[in-house]
Amino acid sequence: MESRGDRLAALVAERELDRLLVTDLVNVRYLTGFGGTNGACVCGGEARVFLTDFRYTERAEAEVEGWDVVTVRDDWLAGIAEHLAGRTGFEDHHLAVRSFEKLKGKVGEGVDLEGAGGTVEKLRRVKDEAELAAIATSSELADEIWRWSLERGLAGRTELDVARAAEARIRDLGAEPSFPAIVAAGPNGALPHAEPGEREIERGELVVFDMGAKLDGYCSDGTRTFATGEPGEAAREVYATVLEAQEAALAEVRAGVRAEEVDGVARELISAAGHGERFGHGLGHGVGLAVHEEPRVSQRSEDVLAPGEVVTIEPGIYLPGKLGVRIEDLVAVTQDGAHNLSALPKALQLVD
Amino acid sequence: MESRGDRLAALVAERELDRLLVTDLVNVRYLTGFGGTNGACVCGGEARVFLTDFRYTERAEAEVEGWDVVTVRDDWLAGIAEHLAGRTGFEDHHLAVRSFEKLKGKVGEGVDLEGAGGTVEKLRRVKDEAELAAIATSSELADEIWRWSLERGLAGRTELDVARAAEARIRDLGAEPSFPAIVAAGPNGALPHAEPGEREIERGELVVFDMGAKLDGYCSDGTRTFATGEPGEAAREVYATVLEAQEAALAEVRAGVRAEEVDGVARELISAAGHGERFGHGLGHGVGLAVHEEPRVSQRSEDVLAPGEVVTIEPGIYLPGKLGVRIEDLVAVTQDGAHNLSALPKALQLVD
Repeated sequence: MESRGDRLAALVAERELDRLLVTDLVNVRYLTGFGGTNGACVCGGEARVFLTDFRYTERAEAEVEGWDVVTVRDDWLAGIAEHLAGRTGFEDHHLAVRSFEKLKGKVGEGVDLEGAGGTVEKLRRVKDEAELAAIATSSELADEIWRWSLERGLAGRTELDVARAAEARIRDLGAEPSFPAIVAAGPNGALPHAEPGEREIERGELVVFDMGAKLDGYCSDGTRTFATGEPGEAAREVYATVLEAQEAALAEVRAGVRAEEVDGVARELISAAGHGERFGHGLGHGVGLAVHEEPRVSQRSEDVLAPGEVVTIEPGIYLPGKLGVRIEDLVAVTQDGAHNLSALPKALQLVD
Repeated sequence: MESRGDRLAALVAERELDRLLVTDLVNVRYLTGFGGTNGACVCGGEARVFLTDFRYTERAEAEVEGWDVVTVRDDWLAGIAEHLAGRTGFEDHHLAVRSFEKLKGKVGEGVDLEGAGGTVEKLRRVKDEAELAAIATSSELADEIWRWSLERGLAGRTELDVARAAEARIRDLGAEPSFPAIVAAGPNGALPHAEPGEREIERGELVVFDMGAKLDGYCSDGTRTFATGEPGEAAREVYATVLEAQEAALAEVRAGVRAEEVDGVARELISAAGHGERFGHGLGHGVGLAVHEEPRVSQRSEDVLAPGEVVTIEPGIYLPGKLGVRIEDLVAVTQDGAHNLSALPKALQLVD
């Protein structure tokens, strides 16, 4: 496979740019492998320049391959400006207005800066084998944390305790949480972005448990909804609807399908069950170096799924004041389907 | 004391602006108390408007006082634009170029956008009583972690193990690390921003241990350099020089002193000892909601210290390939001196 730098250079040429300045550190890491906290790169034509400051020179020389490593001594933006040429794209979704204005004052004659944010993100959508393996490992780790959490039991503990313990366990295993874990029991489950609180989890409640691990830079993201004992018929019905919608949507995933259609499959089933208004978010999103990235799997998405993309499929139903159910798998899109990276069972589990 | 919103409105008027749009979430938190992940505010004249999305309406109503809480339903920037008027400052050090361009297209007639980043940061420099108490608590917590780490011993463990254990302990105590802990032993100590690695800490080495806790949003930051047994005469001399420089600089801190002078006191002593080239960073920085904020205490700083500012005083000497020493206290500037928030002893400690 062509190097990421070469593939980016092809996109840069396609956009009729001479250079692209990459300042978003996640994009910089993707392109160069650099994991420090200050770096940028310039790509286009034959130029593959990685810039950092003296703190990271040594680290960059160890991590960065295929890019010329330049240490900027004094003025960071002036150091960058030296490597720009002609029509230069920059990441306008990332660079702050003040930095942009300063950079404009430092570029040489004949350099025109042009917004070109999202170019590296296009490359990042499709994962190579090593990336797929890294995401799968993060996902397995999260599965292990759910099992470990259930062994310790949920009922009688606070949401916060369950969430913090899960995060600590992720760290003990050498990873980090890819986002703050959500543990939302009973009526709190009806808030899709609830923060775990001091409320004690009771018996007979549904518990939405949304979590991810990040290992070697790559994230996982998944959700299970557990019941701390029999939750009652109404809760079971809602759960069954979400699970049916989730599996129907999963069955729709394959290369070439419009993301909007996949969302629609889940949304229709939930609407048919009378809960259309209670599924207030998109079906899913890409996952990789960032826990939310392209493509989007939603009603308004214009994305078409491609092999090697990794997306979540996570329908939910949220009944205010009562309960919430969300079931989320992480899947890799393949030519004729999807490879599910989440191994935890999805039938409603009654747990302690 | 006037509310933060009112004090900001006075600064906004002083800059001859009609409104200031605040988008940096740390600034938003400072002004309104809002702790969620999406919010902005608009301040100026009588206007005190806080904006968020539906996920945070409930939380904002609980947390935000003295600002009108507005929930933006659809288009975030259009929702913001409705509340701008006349000469409107925006945080140009924070807002991305693309968002700025979009916002420009959405503002009404007669609204002029003007870069005004750093305005809220001016207010944040001087801490009130509650903020000073919060920072002191975070600092005490960090002191406790050092003691706890020393009880477990340093020699024979890897830098990474010591750092990760300290971070886990911070979390166990209900806080979080204000930055990834630095544990750098022997020659690694010579890299001021070393990342803790798999190297085992040996006997008779100096160990630079830089750490902070963050509780209720407020950070601490401190460094001690320990010796795992007798480090030898040369190391002791370097240590004594840094300690002398640190204490001399501390004695210089008071309201009205130029930060550059305080830096100079430490720098001269280190230069006189022949290590002027080996102290390659500024003497200190402000600490608050962010672990690095204004004022700067460095050779190039133009800041003058004021009562209620909280700064680090952290000289260091770094001998490449050999060792490093840094000693860092966190102090609150008072009318005639400084109140030291770091209680851990500074005489060289020989530890296990």
